[in-house]
Amino acid sequence: MTTCVFCQIVSGRLPSHRVLEDDHTVAFLDIAPASEGHTLVVPREHARDIWEISEATHGHVARMVHRVAALLNTALAPDGVNIVHSTGEAASQEVFHFHAHVVPRRHGDSLHPMWNSRPAPGQDLEQVLARVTAVR
Amino acid sequence: MTTCVFCQIVSGRLPSHRVLEDDHTVAFLDIAPASEGHTLVVPREHARDIWEISEATHGHVARMVHRVAALLNTALAPDGVNIVHSTGEAASQEVFHFHAHVVPRRHGDSLHPMWNSRPAPGQDLEQVLARVTAVR
Ligand SMILES: [Zn+2]
Ligand SMILES: [Zn+2]
Repeated sequence: MTTCVFCQIVSGRLPSHRVLEDDHTVAFLDIAPASEGHTLVVPREHARDIWEISEATHGHVARMVHRVAALLNTALAPDGVNIVHSTGEAASQEVFHFHAHVVPRRHGDSLHPMWNSRPAPGQDLEQVLARVTAVR
Repeated sequence: MTTCVFCQIVSGRLPSHRVLEDDHTVAFLDIAPASEGHTLVVPREHARDIWEISEATHGHVARMVHRVAALLNTALAPDGVNIVHSTGEAASQEVFHFHAHVVPRRHGDSLHPMWNSRPAPGQDLEQVLARVTAVR
């Protein structure tokens, strides 16, 4: 038996509030919502994070994210939406089954941006680009 | 002439640090990076936000995000990564041409989570689910 909470939600062994589902993905309400309608989209097949899932599966998740965002827009008429994925504890990943957050936003809600427009110090873009393109 | 900065980057009228590109999308370094390697992925075709792009285009963006994340992982070996999209000023969207941020993360970096695990107050999931499924 898997100990992965999201695998148990996918299989139905754990209950969830399902918003939409298809052959590849399941979308359900986050039990600790950051905002009204906060929904998670997960692939049915277990994969830990962005390094483990395939490009095709990531595409399936994105298509479901798109459908969920449209549905939440119709149902709840938010002022905006954030789509957030986290891979790794350093990025605040808490459940290690790949997932994307769909977070409806309201003007003046209590969520904060992950970063400010002020750039990180000491960034030399030419040097970063050289390192990235070297392994392309 | 378009006044959209990202359309001008796509067309080459404005310079950028291109990481990868394909028929549908262009990936380039953010000029105000939140972290080393912070990259934006945009569709070539102008669309304002998640409400305007098609599901198919969103899928193309996700596939490029996946390739960019893998490339940054190889080149920079971060501790994690966030993928972030914002639609609407309420969600901190600043450039109104759909884009996804690929943000490499390091343990102890200065970025903060968009929300805490503490749920938003007064959320009745059953009631939210009923509103969402009513328009499904
Ligand atoms: Zn799992
Ligand atoms: Zn544009």
